Amino acid sequence: MLSISKRGEEMPASPIRKLVPFAESAKKKGIKVYHLNIGQPDIETPPAIVDAVKHADIRVLEYSHSAGNESYRRKLVQYYKKVGIGVAYDQIMITTGGSEAIMFGFFTCLNPGDEVIVPEPFYANYNGFACAAGVTVKPITSHIENGFALPPIEEFEKVISNKTKAIIICSPNNPTGYLYSKEEMYKLKDICLKYDLYLFSDEAYREFCYDGEYVSAMHIDGMDEHVVLMDTISKRYSACGARIGALVTKNKAVYDAAMKFAQARLSPPGLAQIMGEAAIDLPDTYFEAPKTEYLSRRDLLVKRLNAMDGVVCPNPGGAFYAMAKLPIDDSDLFCQWLLESFSYQGETLMLAPATGFYGTPGLGKQEVRLAYVLNTGALDRAMNCLEEALKVYPGRTN
Amino acid sequence: MLSISKRGEEMPASPIRKLVPFAESAKKKGIKVYHLNIGQPDIETPPAIVDAVKHADIRVLEYSHSAGNESYRRKLVQYYKKVGIGVAYDQIMITTGGSEAIMFGFFTCLNPGDEVIVPEPFYANYNGFACAAGVTVKPITSHIENGFALPPIEEFEKVISNKTKAIIICSPNNPTGYLYSKEEMYKLKDICLKYDLYLFSDEAYREFCYDGEYVSAMHIDGMDEHVVLMDTISKRYSACGARIGALVTKNKAVYDAAMKFAQARLSPPGLAQIMGEAAIDLPDTYFEAPKTEYLSRRDLLVKRLNAMDGVVCPNPGGAFYAMAKLPIDDSDLFCQWLLESFSYQGETLMLAPATGFYGTPGLGKQEVRLAYVLNTGALDRAMNCLEEALKVYPGRTN
Repeated sequence: MLSISKRGEEMPASPIRKLVPFAESAKKKGIKVYHLNIGQPDIETPPAIVDAVKHADIRVLEYSHSAGNESYRRKLVQYYKKVGIGVAYDQIMITTGGSEAIMFGFFTCLNPGDEVIVPEPFYANYNGFACAAGVTVKPITSHIENGFALPPIEEFEKVISNKTKAIIICSPNNPTGYLYSKEEMYKLKDICLKYDLYLFSDEAYREFCYDGEYVSAMHIDGMDEHVVLMDTISKRYSACGARIGALVTKNKAVYDAAMKFAQARLSPPGLAQIMGEAAIDLPDTYFEAPKTEYLSRRDLLVKRLNAMDGVVCPNPGGAFYAMAKLPIDDSDLFCQWLLESFSYQGETLMLAPATGFYGTPGLGKQEVRLAYVLNTGALDRAMNCLEEALKVYPGRTN
Repeated sequence: MLSISKRGEEMPASPIRKLVPFAESAKKKGIKVYHLNIGQPDIETPPAIVDAVKHADIRVLEYSHSAGNESYRRKLVQYYKKVGIGVAYDQIMITTGGSEAIMFGFFTCLNPGDEVIVPEPFYANYNGFACAAGVTVKPITSHIENGFALPPIEEFEKVISNKTKAIIICSPNNPTGYLYSKEEMYKLKDICLKYDLYLFSDEAYREFCYDGEYVSAMHIDGMDEHVVLMDTISKRYSACGARIGALVTKNKAVYDAAMKFAQARLSPPGLAQIMGEAAIDLPDTYFEAPKTEYLSRRDLLVKRLNAMDGVVCPNPGGAFYAMAKLPIDDSDLFCQWLLESFSYQGETLMLAPATGFYGTPGLGKQEVRLAYVLNTGALDRAMNCLEEALKVYPGRTN
């Protein structure tokens, strides 16, 4: 009997995609659906970087270097310098999106059976890469009551075993928007040094910090060997479809081993590398407009949410997500109900149930993630829908 | 102590790249190096498909569907129909190069510890994906004496165990250029059905068949559940840097499980999908020119090689590679010597030692792979170099 692999069976399906058919049905019924469920920004991709591809002189679209074009990596050195990260071009490996950087990190640093600790709620696809790599994700819970701050060190120590090899963090965070402080980053350093753990630092949302200072794992001294930075241009330049990211590390053994995985897949996408390289030449003022836009959206969203009876939404310091606690029985049921059974003035909204972002079963049942990737007018209307929905939802709790 | 993973250690480095520093040194000395070592065609990427990207109207470069744009997959149905393969759009998954299709196939169908049989010499990167997936490659040897034909069934049966889950083939073959006949494909069918094995069919070079008929694994009836086709536009349209491929299968369980791996990495490259889709609209006559060009190169190369004293080169039926047996002691040493210690009229050539394409230690020491990715003038000059080199190489055997 032919059968698929165990990891193929165990590989988690996308927790959001199961709602897609319900969204499609709603649209077929003529209902407008506001998509706050995915991190696909509506911000225009900078025309200058699209034009760089359009004006490129391409006779033969060849394989690039497996680590990415050297010219691009050398320009990225300048970019990282601007954000306070000092790295050399041969410590940067261009990857096929941040996804591949995460995958290379997992495959290079972790053996099957090893454990990686992650504060939950967390980016759900870490589960997928862990499954592919045969690695176990050990969640430690952060809480909405303190805005999803880093759990205390004791919580890490409770789950650390001889199988623990790494901690993965994402700051500013997807899905919570939480921005780790310098103190929290130093706490992580202490744990990593004490227990000899890698720190995988997913910094996809670096440019979008609204309150407090952005602290990269690479800003923390004394842990050059420990940090593997996972980066992407997807959110930074609103270029998710480009599939260009980077793995950055000063640990030469990690870089060299990751390079063998990079060689096996030959090279990262060629056209999009042109785009990434051109992005380094955008004026420093480029981020002002999207950041201002996201900030005004955040402020609107958080204000509207907290004004709703029984809703709590901590103010996220960065990224473009907010997690809200709703007076509902079950976020999966509620999100489905919004699409299947509800509309207000011919409109409804699609949210991501928080259950998909927790590793601990049962958590997140009263929480949802909202991506503020729509303009304030649309967001305001979406919030009208949510407010009305909560009034009539049959599974409303107190 | 921080350490990299066991698979990170065991992951094979590219067998060709270790020669790169020697090629660089040669160039620094002013020696012209003919690169016959890699499958990077010099054929122009069709301007029409590059222009499709240049003329695309892109406001936001969004994530595509994880299986690739539906419009592209629907057009690929037409493409496959033209080459005699009847598949539906939802049996096609767009991947990041053929590399990712191979990876998805391995991860979806094979458990750690499972074995995959491959006729050697074979595409060296199968080793890398096998290592990442924790799978063991079991080579069975094909021989230059009969042009690298499919080894007899008994050779397969000798290595089949309860761990064997798949056979991987590549036709037309990289590195041998061998084109499996219909009879050979039916032999493979018999083995796969008898032992319940997947047939991974790497058909990257489909368009370049010179003698005999191209037979896809999907042309063989009665094995819909067994075949996982791994495809790419890299060689077909001379667009290696695009990183667009496809996994095609009628086995729904395999497709659905592969889809979960596809979802975890979000989507294949967006700009290059535009290119791939535009390629379907190239006129049917498009392949005539590159095929004629490759054929004239092959004829020149094979003729020149067989005219050299002590050299044997079977006539490859497809792809753009030839394997030649040379009167040398060690192909790794010889290829390094060509770059390090030899030149003829200020020129030398870079070849791929065949040792990197064999899984059985010790094989391939007298063989090299030549990629005919240069025009006939350059090929002819490269052959002059090889001819002279063989006269003076200190490790020449009889």
